[in-house]
Amino acid sequence: MREFELLQSIYATASKSSHIKIGPGDDMGELLIQGARVLSAVDHLIVGRHVEEDCLPEEIGRKAIARCFSDIAAMAGTPVACLMTACIPSSKENDWCEKVFQSARDVAHKWGGPIFGGDIASCDNAPPIFTVTAFATPPERGAITRNGARQGDFVCVTGELGNSIKGHHLSFTPRIEEAKELLEILGTDLHSMIDISDGLGQDASHLSTDSLQLNIDLSSLPLRKGATVEQALQDGEDYELLFTCKSAPPDNLATVIGVVESGSKHAVTSDGKSIADCGWEHS
Amino acid sequence: MREFELLQSIYATASKSSHIKIGPGDDMGELLIQGARVLSAVDHLIVGRHVEEDCLPEEIGRKAIARCFSDIAAMAGTPVACLMTACIPSSKENDWCEKVFQSARDVAHKWGGPIFGGDIASCDNAPPIFTVTAFATPPERGAITRNGARQGDFVCVTGELGNSIKGHHLSFTPRIEEAKELLEILGTDLHSMIDISDGLGQDASHLSTDSLQLNIDLSSLPLRKGATVEQALQDGEDYELLFTCKSAPPDNLATVIGVVESGSKHAVTSDGKSIADCGWEHS
Repeated sequence: MREFELLQSIYATASKSSHIKIGPGDDMGELLIQGARVLSAVDHLIVGRHVEEDCLPEEIGRKAIARCFSDIAAMAGTPVACLMTACIPSSKENDWCEKVFQSARDVAHKWGGPIFGGDIASCDNAPPIFTVTAFATPPERGAITRNGARQGDFVCVTGELGNSIKGHHLSFTPRIEEAKELLEILGTDLHSMIDISDGLGQDASHLSTDSLQLNIDLSSLPLRKGATVEQALQDGEDYELLFTCKSAPPDNLATVIGVVESGSKHAVTSDGKSIADCGWEHS
Repeated sequence: MREFELLQSIYATASKSSHIKIGPGDDMGELLIQGARVLSAVDHLIVGRHVEEDCLPEEIGRKAIARCFSDIAAMAGTPVACLMTACIPSSKENDWCEKVFQSARDVAHKWGGPIFGGDIASCDNAPPIFTVTAFATPPERGAITRNGARQGDFVCVTGELGNSIKGHHLSFTPRIEEAKELLEILGTDLHSMIDISDGLGQDASHLSTDSLQLNIDLSSLPLRKGATVEQALQDGEDYELLFTCKSAPPDNLATVIGVVESGSKHAVTSDGKSIADCGWEHS
């Protein structure tokens, strides 16, 4: 099973329906329900894969919510609520599970999207697995999707990149407020956005179009302490906002790291080398 | 980890929020989003637990959707859309996964709630696990919840009970249309409703209140071919509607199997024996 191929295949044959305003392939989907626009996305957190097995339950619960709410930030959305499930070996103590949920509940509430339900199943031949379904509303002008880059756009990123594994991936706050600020400042100049989960190279390629590619100046990457350029390109789990815009954002909110240009290589360095495959290997 | 205890603990401390109209503990939660009432629920399907490992992929995809959409029926809701995730060992063929999703997509579309997104992760030390998050709208008068039984209500059930394992659990159609018919015929006389997933005894107890219990006449249970009364009480996976109502429903839609009476034993037989624990053992 190759995740990416399977996703492509499923996306390609997704049902079309007039009330599905954004289908598979963006950070969140969007439904029109009784006149309301509802954004939603679901994310797994698998212990042993997305967090180490010796991670504290409080960190696990926090990250389960944070990585899903990062999708809300990527659409410039406002959290409404979330559902959280758990698939847990029966040997796990209730106390451990409660700490996971307590922590998840606290941050979900704090970030404006309280948990309102879920499902719990015991499964002895699997690691603990949590899924979070986030609900949000888009900004009035509509969600910022991955498909809006225009030739000449600045390519920008919030925060710092690389070496997230050393701790950032467990402590980051989804860039929900920053996305709102960007939208307020840039207005309709904010053209496309994604959060960096798989790695800058790969996620940048998701903002490319059939005829436009992102040209990234590696010398301009804002590196996290101890991170190399290579790590910034492919580590992933930064949960920073990567976006393209017509006017440059203020320095305190984001760093300009490239430009949108004509081309079909999706994401390249200044010397034309493709970086579209740099990132988490979906296998 | 004991599912039921953990659920109770999580429910007890759920966040209160004015836009959460129905919180944890019912078949679906309800959110008020920009004036729209949105029902949502999430369900796991674990291969090896909810379906046999040698089950056809088409049956797995169908059941993943059907069991979650049965929650929509239980609220008398109308499906809008759904999200579907997969956690799959990398050794599984893409072809198998695509068959699961193709089948899921077909029934989700057919039942009015097309798949509009999801998440796919590979996980080698676990069986295939699917989660479906369903979105629905409640009927105009409001969703039919578990908390509405009144003294003297008839206790009724659609279809037949027991022995679902022989095939019904893979071929059932969620009772969405039947719920609508019941609502149309019974109107405000339809007081409370749940779908039978854990077993009649246990699910009946979920319709009880602090001072009201459900008295079930075992001789009146509509038995599925080959099923015993005991199986009807505790097998579960019937995905039939269990409801209480002031006036009796037409015979072609449901069978009267008991009455709501004063008492605190949750669910009892005519001779007063508790059946509240009859059903799937949450461990």
